Amino acid sequence: MHHHARSALVAACTVATALFALHVNAQFAKPEDATRYRRAVMTVMATHFGRVAGMANGKIAFDPRAAADSTDIALTMSRLPFAAFIPGTDKGETKAEPKIWTEPDKFKAAAEQMQESMVKLQAAAKSGNLDTIKVAVGDTGKSCKSCHDNYRKE
Amino acid sequence: MHHHARSALVAACTVATALFALHVNAQFAKPEDATRYRRAVMTVMATHFGRVAGMANGKIAFDPRAAADSTDIALTMSRLPFAAFIPGTDKGETKAEPKIWTEPDKFKAAAEQMQESMVKLQAAAKSGNLDTIKVAVGDTGKSCKSCHDNYRKE
Repeated sequence: MHHHARSALVAACTVATALFALHVNAQFAKPEDATRYRRAVMTVMATHFGRVAGMANGKIAFDPRAAADSTDIALTMSRLPFAAFIPGTDKGETKAEPKIWTEPDKFKAAAEQMQESMVKLQAAAKSGNLDTIKVAVGDTGKSCKSCHDNYRKE
Repeated sequence: MHHHARSALVAACTVATALFALHVNAQFAKPEDATRYRRAVMTVMATHFGRVAGMANGKIAFDPRAAADSTDIALTMSRLPFAAFIPGTDKGETKAEPKIWTEPDKFKAAAEQMQESMVKLQAAAKSGNLDTIKVAVGDTGKSCKSCHDNYRKE
């Protein structure tokens, strides 16, 4: 490759990277907005997953409609936090482990495993069968715990 | 009505009220879980509404797909906070005005107005027309502000 062509390519990539970074960060005006947002998403997800888990373990009376509604919300939430792990959000009010940014592929795999378990939990809730829900709650709970053990402090 | 029949009716109503209260409160183990949950819901809703509003006022590049995704999430969130204004959640970490509990019908009407404006915003976002979105963002913003002026401290 000619020197000039290579320079042009490097310049084009630099611009593309800058644009991508701008696009990603434009979703949040400040890093603390991103950490606050993902904490909020986790609170909403935990509340609704917890409600279904409570029905699975008999602490809350089983209500098929409420279980289905809660799994819908938990599934929607499961897709949101990961866009908020942007650069600069490893500090402040967060329990995020630095590993999130040093092994992004493993973190992404753990996130996807959780999201898949939520899809299965939604299907189980739609079935209205409490035994099916119990199994799916167990699997989802494992995917939560596994990711938290690796990527959440405390 | 015979005295015995009236006593039975009163007893039945007391049980019904107790069950209803139990059902409502069973969604949250402690009042502070309810306040934390509704704050979280508002954070997620504000983030996604804010993203669409940013596109409407030209601060964020218009992305029809991202706008539609964000209005879907904001609409889902718009339906959640109100189940969390349970007794005992007028204190602690909350900006909720005591009026919420003294004029529940007015508060409910304000909530429903916001929810309706979110339905219209979702339809506008699905149209992909930025001018339509601008109008719907304006209307939704007004319903947010109106409810906050009346029912949120500060």
